Amino acid sequence: MNKPTNQNAFETPKVTTGPLPGSRRIYTHPKAAPHLAVPHREIELHPTAMEPPVRVYDTSGPYADPDAAIDVEAGLPRWRTERIMARGGVEFCEGREPTPLDNGGATGKYLARAFPVRHKPLKATGSAPVTQLEFARAGIITDEMIYAAERENLGRTHALPDAAKNLADGESFGASVPEFVTPEFVRDEIARGRAILPANINHPELEPMVIGRNFLVKINANIGNSAVASSVEEEVDKMVWAIRWGGDTVMDLSTGKNIHNTREWILRNSPVPIGTVPIYQALEKVGGVAEDLTFDIFADTLIEQAEQGVDYFTIHAGVRLPYVPLTADRVTGIVSRGGSIMAKWCLAHHKESFLYERFEEICEIMRAYDVSFSLGDGLRPGSTADANDRAQFAELETLGELTKVAWDHGCQVMIEGPGHVAMHKIKANMDKQLETCGEAPFYTLGPLTTDIAPGYDHITSGIGAAMIGWFGCAMLCYVTPKEHLGLPDRDDVKTGVVTYKIAAHAADLAKGHPAARLRDDALSRARFEFRWEDQFNLGLDPETARDFHDQTLPKEAHKVAHFCSMCGPKFCSMKITQEIRDEFGSARAPNTLEDAEQGMAEKAREFNEKGGEIYLSEDGATRGAID
Amino acid sequence: MNKPTNQNAFETPKVTTGPLPGSRRIYTHPKAAPHLAVPHREIELHPTAMEPPVRVYDTSGPYADPDAAIDVEAGLPRWRTERIMARGGVEFCEGREPTPLDNGGATGKYLARAFPVRHKPLKATGSAPVTQLEFARAGIITDEMIYAAERENLGRTHALPDAAKNLADGESFGASVPEFVTPEFVRDEIARGRAILPANINHPELEPMVIGRNFLVKINANIGNSAVASSVEEEVDKMVWAIRWGGDTVMDLSTGKNIHNTREWILRNSPVPIGTVPIYQALEKVGGVAEDLTFDIFADTLIEQAEQGVDYFTIHAGVRLPYVPLTADRVTGIVSRGGSIMAKWCLAHHKESFLYERFEEICEIMRAYDVSFSLGDGLRPGSTADANDRAQFAELETLGELTKVAWDHGCQVMIEGPGHVAMHKIKANMDKQLETCGEAPFYTLGPLTTDIAPGYDHITSGIGAAMIGWFGCAMLCYVTPKEHLGLPDRDDVKTGVVTYKIAAHAADLAKGHPAARLRDDALSRARFEFRWEDQFNLGLDPETARDFHDQTLPKEAHKVAHFCSMCGPKFCSMKITQEIRDEFGSARAPNTLEDAEQGMAEKAREFNEKGGEIYLSEDGATRGAID
Repeated sequence: MNKPTNQNAFETPKVTTGPLPGSRRIYTHPKAAPHLAVPHREIELHPTAMEPPVRVYDTSGPYADPDAAIDVEAGLPRWRTERIMARGGVEFCEGREPTPLDNGGATGKYLARAFPVRHKPLKATGSAPVTQLEFARAGIITDEMIYAAERENLGRTHALPDAAKNLADGESFGASVPEFVTPEFVRDEIARGRAILPANINHPELEPMVIGRNFLVKINANIGNSAVASSVEEEVDKMVWAIRWGGDTVMDLSTGKNIHNTREWILRNSPVPIGTVPIYQALEKVGGVAEDLTFDIFADTLIEQAEQGVDYFTIHAGVRLPYVPLTADRVTGIVSRGGSIMAKWCLAHHKESFLYERFEEICEIMRAYDVSFSLGDGLRPGSTADANDRAQFAELETLGELTKVAWDHGCQVMIEGPGHVAMHKIKANMDKQLETCGEAPFYTLGPLTTDIAPGYDHITSGIGAAMIGWFGCAMLCYVTPKEHLGLPDRDDVKTGVVTYKIAAHAADLAKGHPAARLRDDALSRARFEFRWEDQFNLGLDPETARDFHDQTLPKEAHKVAHFCSMCGPKFCSMKITQEIRDEFGSARAPNTLEDAEQGMAEKAREFNEKGGEIYLSEDGATRGAID
Repeated sequence: MNKPTNQNAFETPKVTTGPLPGSRRIYTHPKAAPHLAVPHREIELHPTAMEPPVRVYDTSGPYADPDAAIDVEAGLPRWRTERIMARGGVEFCEGREPTPLDNGGATGKYLARAFPVRHKPLKATGSAPVTQLEFARAGIITDEMIYAAERENLGRTHALPDAAKNLADGESFGASVPEFVTPEFVRDEIARGRAILPANINHPELEPMVIGRNFLVKINANIGNSAVASSVEEEVDKMVWAIRWGGDTVMDLSTGKNIHNTREWILRNSPVPIGTVPIYQALEKVGGVAEDLTFDIFADTLIEQAEQGVDYFTIHAGVRLPYVPLTADRVTGIVSRGGSIMAKWCLAHHKESFLYERFEEICEIMRAYDVSFSLGDGLRPGSTADANDRAQFAELETLGELTKVAWDHGCQVMIEGPGHVAMHKIKANMDKQLETCGEAPFYTLGPLTTDIAPGYDHITSGIGAAMIGWFGCAMLCYVTPKEHLGLPDRDDVKTGVVTYKIAAHAADLAKGHPAARLRDDALSRARFEFRWEDQFNLGLDPETARDFHDQTLPKEAHKVAHFCSMCGPKFCSMKITQEIRDEFGSARAPNTLEDAEQGMAEKAREFNEKGGEIYLSEDGATRGAID
């Protein structure tokens, strides 16, 4: 049922390029490795703000950089290869020969065009360190760790003056968020398994990032074609689109045919870690019949994907035969696709899961390419009714046991979590994971806090995501408005990503992350001072904010007047606050000439040239909120 | 700047009528007062469900009832008048003569047409009980209390079998949610000030409801024209639209001209309590110059609105002169419009607020019509930076003091809350309110948990709303996607209401409300059994859910097949769960012939006539969630 994809008709995927409004991509060079160019985004403010640009974390890759030459047919620069080679322990190999089955037997006009360039894969040669965990344990700080530390700090070279105060003001439930992230800290967190740095040696296009409770909360966006909809072009475009709005990692959940070729296009063009669920492709290879799965087919699929450069694999090795009956009384049984495949296999053979029994072999394969584990929660609840039940927690305990096995093999591990959980059970879920899995990063889908709003599950789950992020979850897997209903399109991907950026950031704020509130405060000042453009551009989605504003007050002039549609031009609470400040003084009296004297001479000149008036003479009026 | 509203050009407001898909409005008759017809909504399920219809709380009023004759020019039936008269203590009076100033001096084509019917207002005659609080304290159970109890129970005549279990499973942070809501319980909660039943004696069209921590969490939707946009017709339509999707109360925040006439149209057609912020209109009467406000103008405005039937007034009497300087160092000063009006007045006169100084006179006016207080938080934070600061908490303490004064005068009281509060400060805010204000119901705007997402503040605030609802907030004031940017249109109103229904319901679930999970479980079963129509109809927004589904799989046949776009027709986790149940048994083996034998003979016949097959023969496949 895949769309016909005639080789000649196949178009180069069109992707969105260029910066977000008011933004530019900049690069800093870490002291510890000045050859690295680490990207950030800077949002320029209006001259009247007399504030430096606001720097924010940037996931968008070279696509947002007007100076970068984007060629989707060639893929992104493979800058890490040289460094990976230099540190040794790996070699190029011929790699596994792709077979027609890798693309589900698609032929002729149904076969998606292969990516034009074929790169030889790298593989570990022996026991020398290959994974980030092995390097970390050996006390080695990799370029990837330095890069990730620089990103976490947004290129700052020292802790913010308010770092300790901000941390003290937050509530982190036992996390150890540092005032300033050093490469050593990244290394130590990886070494003790509390963070992962997903970076397959065959994904040299990567901009490294770190996932762990003591770093910024991350989000994942899912893409992927299915048997009934979407094409390679759409998926590559969705990947670029998802990272433009803030996706930290992307999972390719493609099913149906053309899985191999779709993934290659995505990987070669992705600056973010790519995750997959290899059992989906393995199932395609056995014609969709779960009981025909074998370890060999599964292992071969792991190698296929590891050689392509997939950075993390969801492996549902915790779905053990004895747990299957625990789901019989559930309202919604087993809803994880991977979980139900394995349950089916176990039932059909009346045997223990081959993923569980041969887990060490899986570790050996994944270690050789530094593919991180994302231990899947195949028995996660599909409804709030089934949350935190015996089946779920039995599996979680097994995942804790497997975490230690994977660590012993030098593999990085995170743990997947639910699903559907009402608010009062989220904390228990998080605590149980931390305790059971030795603080390995938790990576949760949502959780959805109620089941009654199909069409709005980005919101039912955004609530749970913000909370579990606060409680200690390291990465939040987005949910789009189409959840339970259909495949997300571009708009859904954006809505899902922005919703989850909100959840992740709300979590960072609540934890007391030392720098999280800088952006909130900058936006609040812009809002209060009626710098409308700054308010739009500092937001997660400048385009939507501007569009909403313009629906009521389209004129350009309104974007500089202190005037909004909610009160109209009569009354201004901001003006009154200014009078209060004039009367009683203020620690921060913004936009006065004193600011200018304090060293921002140029900005001040600009400002004075424009008349030195912040408040336009019209008797403007507004309010920021409802009453 | 109001739109021209030529008397002849004025059209009868068009409102949306008819039931939601799959639903019908039904009525039950409380044992304690069989003459009352209390509305609920019933959602019919597919015959294969073999389940009775699911009953849900209904706010939509007669508009959703095809048997009700809707005439917006006449208003809704004034069914309460007779009962209010019967219990005595009130009499009809001539009432205050409307003046041109009531409509901001609008004349000619700028004056909105007056509502066609003028009703004489009722007023208390003396000290006999008039307010619901006075009746409650006197041990009297009013029809309104019986009505509200019946609604809370959805017409059930006894507690659910699982009520105690569900309560025990929840975490209510010290609330006293009962297994079953009796009229006596409603009375007692009102008597001790822990709940209010907003019901102006001049709003006899009302379908009474109760707001308190031990009842279902309620939501409010704001509407209102402003000086720059919208008209009477739009606002009436928005009110009907807001309650269709679940608004429990509506605040009319109109500013500019035509405030009086707009409000009359809204009230005469509203089955839900209407709230206002009278200082907005008072300010219009003095030409927008805050310092020209006087107690007399304000008091006259209260009487004007009380006679029209407004059910609750936001009064910012806690903005005291000494608190004004506390806001000078804030990032966003004073953002409440009412708060900044009063701050301006205090500053200009260097005098204590007349709302505070003459609070008892305000109580006397409001008592005479049973207008409930919503004590406004004029100093609420406009940014997360300003949350829980001295200004906010100083005002809250004053609100606690005024609560007791209002109670002494027989007035019902709720307390308004923030605003912008990061997650880790929400609980402290809620706890402080409960402690300071004698457990008077809390009514919060959001709170927004981060400031960085203009265009998505229904989500930033939906997170905070769900949490504070869980912690003890009684009513959540919605925030729409247009917050901070523009006036909400119809779509924004719907998005805001649905988002807040999610938050309120998530809170009910987490508190362990005895009946909350019935709807979640019914929907989860529908989802798991691929009853697509049931899944849509049980959701908060059937239309959007269906639309989203149809974007990927439009064919009607797909709505009965167990098949969804996320996996395509290959693999079905539900089928596997059925196999697990067949193998291991299940407490609930749904959709088997046993169900039929257990008394649902008719449904079973229907089912068998259709072939007795749940799983269509095609090799369908699906999954409910991401992996």
